[in-house]
Amino acid sequence: MATPRLFLGIDIGGSSVKLGVVSATGQVCAQRAAQLVVDQGRDVGMESIFGEAERCLTDAGVGVGDLRGIGVAAPGTMDLAAGVILQPFNLPGWEDLPLKQLTQQRLRTPTVLVNDANAAAFGEFWVGAGREYRSLMLWTLGTGIGGGIVLDGEILVGAHGHAGECGHMVIQCDGGPRSEFGIHGSVELFAGARALVRRTQEALEAGRESVLHRQHGEATLTPVAISAAAEQGDALAIELILETARYLAVSTVNVMHIVNPEIILFGGAMTFGQACSQIGRLFLEEVRSQVRGMAFPVPASSTRIEFASLGNDAGFIGAAGCALRASQSGPLS
Amino acid sequence: MATPRLFLGIDIGGSSVKLGVVSATGQVCAQRAAQLVVDQGRDVGMESIFGEAERCLTDAGVGVGDLRGIGVAAPGTMDLAAGVILQPFNLPGWEDLPLKQLTQQRLRTPTVLVNDANAAAFGEFWVGAGREYRSLMLWTLGTGIGGGIVLDGEILVGAHGHAGECGHMVIQCDGGPRSEFGIHGSVELFAGARALVRRTQEALEAGRESVLHRQHGEATLTPVAISAAAEQGDALAIELILETARYLAVSTVNVMHIVNPEIILFGGAMTFGQACSQIGRLFLEEVRSQVRGMAFPVPASSTRIEFASLGNDAGFIGAAGCALRASQSGPLS
Repeated sequence: MATPRLFLGIDIGGSSVKLGVVSATGQVCAQRAAQLVVDQGRDVGMESIFGEAERCLTDAGVGVGDLRGIGVAAPGTMDLAAGVILQPFNLPGWEDLPLKQLTQQRLRTPTVLVNDANAAAFGEFWVGAGREYRSLMLWTLGTGIGGGIVLDGEILVGAHGHAGECGHMVIQCDGGPRSEFGIHGSVELFAGARALVRRTQEALEAGRESVLHRQHGEATLTPVAISAAAEQGDALAIELILETARYLAVSTVNVMHIVNPEIILFGGAMTFGQACSQIGRLFLEEVRSQVRGMAFPVPASSTRIEFASLGNDAGFIGAAGCALRASQSGPLS
Repeated sequence: MATPRLFLGIDIGGSSVKLGVVSATGQVCAQRAAQLVVDQGRDVGMESIFGEAERCLTDAGVGVGDLRGIGVAAPGTMDLAAGVILQPFNLPGWEDLPLKQLTQQRLRTPTVLVNDANAAAFGEFWVGAGREYRSLMLWTLGTGIGGGIVLDGEILVGAHGHAGECGHMVIQCDGGPRSEFGIHGSVELFAGARALVRRTQEALEAGRESVLHRQHGEATLTPVAISAAAEQGDALAIELILETARYLAVSTVNVMHIVNPEIILFGGAMTFGQACSQIGRLFLEEVRSQVRGMAFPVPASSTRIEFASLGNDAGFIGAAGCALRASQSGPLS
């Protein structure tokens, strides 16, 4: 019996690595997650990733020789053509690392490098919540806010590999929250995890009533705690989460008026339990309602707004999908 | 001698129509401009456009039979596939007009319908300031602010024909200027012609010194007057134009972080004389400088920011280019 065409997806995050062996139809044959070893130097870190990759292949009952391609998703700026990550904020000491070349050599398999949020968007497009659509935008909501855009089946990479960085979209150019970089008033600074905690702290300090006062000042005022308080009916927590939804709705309308994808997805830890929780459903309904009130009639009535469906697996699945796509459009170098 | 392949571009604006016979290399063989007859009903209006088209062909010394295709650019929402304009704000009574079909039948030539700002963007991409680049975004600055995006040689149309509407991008979600529609705080409301006049009036009423007090209240406080005052060194006029540049820079950075085109162009009447005037050069330099301060390093250093070069001809040239492009990708229906 012929071995099915298999691809390895590797999703390198700031503190962990997730990887999986994925079939040409997007089925996950085996997957692993491990702490990422960052502080012992990049050689040790990369070796630990390759070790996980080999264990993952063993789990799937296959060998390196069965792989048709590898996709590596990584954060930060990168030279996609050269396959080099340039300045990954979350990976100190990993600057200018030739990820593609190292992976290709060590695992003897053609490799593509992809931005992590773009990989997740491609995963959702391929086999996730966007699989029935030709174009999508994915918000990845977490400490930071990332984005990825897929148009007509291709990731929108942009002229300098910089497209889809929608979390840095400025939605309040005057008097908005400031960052340590040049950008102020971006949606990440309003609706990222840190921003939610900051807005909560401000409200508590302003004397607003909330069960969250118990958490305040104990370093336990986290998005999870705020979400739990909202789930219990805490008015302030609900208000702050709906406010988060409004900032994301403004940004979503901007994406609709600039790129006009068929569907817009919300994924990541800051989606408040998604459809499994009352507050997650309230969050998404608020995004939809705000979008309908702001967008022009045609996109307002036609654009789907949903939760992503692949969770934390979107990155490695999408990276594997990118490897498949690259293998279809010619031999990888 | 074989007749060269010729295309007719028609650019229907709110009050005028511009049209031209254009070769397959983008050379304009003949062009005309006329007042658009809107108020005598759409049949009379369309007949006057077709009359201009025939005169333009005569000017070029060719007949309808020499045309390989026609591109019609029009404003407002449209059903591109059906070739119908839906609700053109500036053309009352022209709702649901089957522009493509009417043109095809009357001029017996395959026709494509294009959004006007998208047509202008395609014109600049084809033979204008963007001709050496693979992707661009064009701002059309006037009473309203339009936009058009070309990626890898194709207009970014979007899932519902709504992409590139960058003038409606919200850049001040709280406390920004309000419009009569759902959108508040959009770049158009900050940097369109009406917004510049409004901001100038507010500054004059607040007692700011300016030569513009002479124009104030006489309905002569126009962008042209403000530009002329700036050219003469009026501090308030210069400040207001640089403020306009800043709002456009914020919006440009957003486009860079979402779509990441190679080059971003500024065209339209609100470009303050472009490179021919001191204030036009100051305006563009301010946009560039603000963009460099806000964008991430790679796009900040690599993205070109320039004036458009085709002026008012961009629309009909681009529409003709779209007809050429459609003729290349198969027979037009």
